[in-house]
Amino acid sequence: MVQVTRKEHFSASHRLHNPDWSSEKNAEVFGKCNNPNGHGHNYEIEVTVAGEAGSDTGMVIDLTKLSAIINEKIIDRVDHKHMNHDVDFLRGIIPTAENMAIAFWKILKPAISEGRLVSVKLYESANNFVEYKGE
Amino acid sequence: MVQVTRKEHFSASHRLHNPDWSSEKNAEVFGKCNNPNGHGHNYEIEVTVAGEAGSDTGMVIDLTKLSAIINEKIIDRVDHKHMNHDVDFLRGIIPTAENMAIAFWKILKPAISEGRLVSVKLYESANNFVEYKGE
Amino acid sequence: MVQVTRKEHFSASHRLHNPDWSSEKNAEVFGKCNNPNGHGHNYEIEVTVAGEAGSDTGMVIDLTKLSAIINEKIIDRVDHKHMNHDVDFLRGIIPTAENMAIAFWKILKPAISEGRLVSVKLYESANNFVEYKGE
Amino acid sequence: MVQVTRKEHFSASHRLHNPDWSSEKNAEVFGKCNNPNGHGHNYEIEVTVAGEAGSDTGMVIDLTKLSAIINEKIIDRVDHKHMNHDVDFLRGIIPTAENMAIAFWKILKPAISEGRLVSVKLYESANNFVEYKGE
Amino acid sequence: MVQVTRKEHFSASHRLHNPDWSSEKNAEVFGKCNNPNGHGHNYEIEVTVAGEAGSDTGMVIDLTKLSAIINEKIIDRVDHKHMNHDVDFLRGIIPTAENMAIAFWKILKPAISEGRLVSVKLYESANNFVEYKGE
Amino acid sequence: MVQVTRKEHFSASHRLHNPDWSSEKNAEVFGKCNNPNGHGHNYEIEVTVAGEAGSDTGMVIDLTKLSAIINEKIIDRVDHKHMNHDVDFLRGIIPTAENMAIAFWKILKPAISEGRLVSVKLYESANNFVEYKGE
Repeated sequence: MVQVTRKEHFSASHRLHNPDWSSEKNAEVFGKCNNPNGHGHNYEIEVTVAGEAGSDTGMVIDLTKLSAIINEKIIDRVDHKHMNHDVDFLRGIIPTAENMAIAFWKILKPAISEGRLVSVKLYESANNFVEYKGE
Repeated sequence: MVQVTRKEHFSASHRLHNPDWSSEKNAEVFGKCNNPNGHGHNYEIEVTVAGEAGSDTGMVIDLTKLSAIINEKIIDRVDHKHMNHDVDFLRGIIPTAENMAIAFWKILKPAISEGRLVSVKLYESANNFVEYKGE
Repeated sequence: MVQVTRKEHFSASHRLHNPDWSSEKNAEVFGKCNNPNGHGHNYEIEVTVAGEAGSDTGMVIDLTKLSAIINEKIIDRVDHKHMNHDVDFLRGIIPTAENMAIAFWKILKPAISEGRLVSVKLYESANNFVEYKGE
Repeated sequence: MVQVTRKEHFSASHRLHNPDWSSEKNAEVFGKCNNPNGHGHNYEIEVTVAGEAGSDTGMVIDLTKLSAIINEKIIDRVDHKHMNHDVDFLRGIIPTAENMAIAFWKILKPAISEGRLVSVKLYESANNFVEYKGE
Repeated sequence: MVQVTRKEHFSASHRLHNPDWSSEKNAEVFGKCNNPNGHGHNYEIEVTVAGEAGSDTGMVIDLTKLSAIINEKIIDRVDHKHMNHDVDFLRGIIPTAENMAIAFWKILKPAISEGRLVSVKLYESANNFVEYKGE
Repeated sequence: MVQVTRKEHFSASHRLHNPDWSSEKNAEVFGKCNNPNGHGHNYEIEVTVAGEAGSDTGMVIDLTKLSAIINEKIIDRVDHKHMNHDVDFLRGIIPTAENMAIAFWKILKPAISEGRLVSVKLYESANNFVEYKGE
């Protein structure tokens, strides 16, 4: 068993806001992340797949293929977008890094057929990141 | 003459859009950066000041002071904001990295009295950055 | 279960020295890290907390709060300090990265009440780092 | 139990090629990585060792010693080499990052007697890396 | 006048060797960089263009366009290649970082028509880089 | 003319303190950097040399040689040292990054005979750095 990881990047904006709460409560809980016009990040996503290194290829999964899957399923749908308005699979979800990582996992899990998805790591900034392992 | 540099960070969103153009021309020129809801970045700003290292302090300017100036004049006004809507000194300006660096220079120039401002460098992402030297 | 991580930075100096040993043995075991006047590092600390993403906030713990806890409990007490002389909770401990990570864990564990502390990672330099998971 | 990690660097070239396959199949499976003259990388290797922090040294293993082991056993044999032609312990192995990490593990495992080797991580580039934990 | 920079990446191998010299002299001058099978690097190239920020676009040159030029003219011809054997425009040139930067400049100079090329910076590794400004 | 740069690293501690001043004035001017026991940094030094790329070597100066010069003249004398107490060539100088860069320049200038020293850049941390160009 070896783990292989591919990192991809995207730029997006989001606003942390719970529509069930008053403006006051939203401001209190989410602070400047509740700014009505949103703010943005250069996100980094690391997708890790575990498996055997194939005896004829020496690979768990071709990282070029894994890159293509991440780009088709995730990056093309979130890059240069506003997470609260432009992304169908995030509709109704507060786009914290935690919820975004879980949503990305749900999409990637069935899309990866060589090896087994074991981790989705999402960097919101150099100092803030989250990891979801599906359990 | 020594040059000293302080780096600061902020997260913001922006949209590249020229209001004098049609939607079609905006989409053609700015591509996905023209997305109506905007998109975001983790920006890094490097401010460079040149001067003599003072004989009694060994410093051109105390970097704690320089950091405070950058935070008060720039970061506090742009962090977690939407450049097109929330920032008074960017009103009427297309918020490309080029125009943002020039706008930051104009604000910082008169605010720095120890040493002389010689460069404002703005990183939009790890792969894209601009530098303005005031001329 | 999601894991969220916050990174913070501090600068400090230390000296590796076992007072029960002779100068010769200290020099032999710790090499240039035994220099009597100490030497220093820009340390990075990554604190990881695991938990459910709250249904109303989408967060395990607000990273602004986690940052405040790390700063109050750790950074404010070690930043710009000499680990062997200036830090009460390190008294009597050889300040290797291993021992510092364990000491930080003991302080952070009871201070974090949302989610559960699962890892303290301490980077002494880009090439040397340690991780303590509490067991 | 604490985990300590040492990172080292080397530059090398390799070619992904399965000699049991036709040129066409090799080109199809490995793409531009099958270029006959090879291509190269700045590799980073992270070696992680777990153990108790010794009561008299405060260390799991002296990172200077760990660095010396990695350099003697791995770096000196692969740095500035062509993985397919110049490295005896890789003979007959397709030098993917997966296979290289496994080969490094086999060499390092018996060479580390303080603490216990728990992970070999190999970065082929900033965006591609693998990890092998020996099972 | 603003300067804008775009960074791109490629992986390649090379060998430092002067065919006019004996094997002994080559080994003496170039050391392990003279290894007959070559060795490799993850190169980073930073291309800087200076100009006015256009009043209707706010840009010196669209960085997407600049990226496309660098990819078409340079990256596609050197990525996953052996500099000594596979690259026509490097034929007869010892592929040091210095000579590669000068060769890249000669190709990029006439290809950039918005703004003016002012610098080609080439990173061979995190610790070694060169810059050519055309004079 | 090409510029080549070599980066090296060292860890050291220092204290900002002007012996001609009272304790109160030192504390006021240098803040926490005046802590009597000092504090530390992982410094990075970038040394840039300009010259022609030799027609037979393709190099301005062999970066292995430049690395050896920086290590012998600077790193070996400051690594794991306390700048205020352990370094002869810094005696009587307040060890700010500015003064250290100037002191390093004075030592390196006569030691580099291939090409011409054009810049010494010193990073005290990821966010603070200085550059000295000898004039």
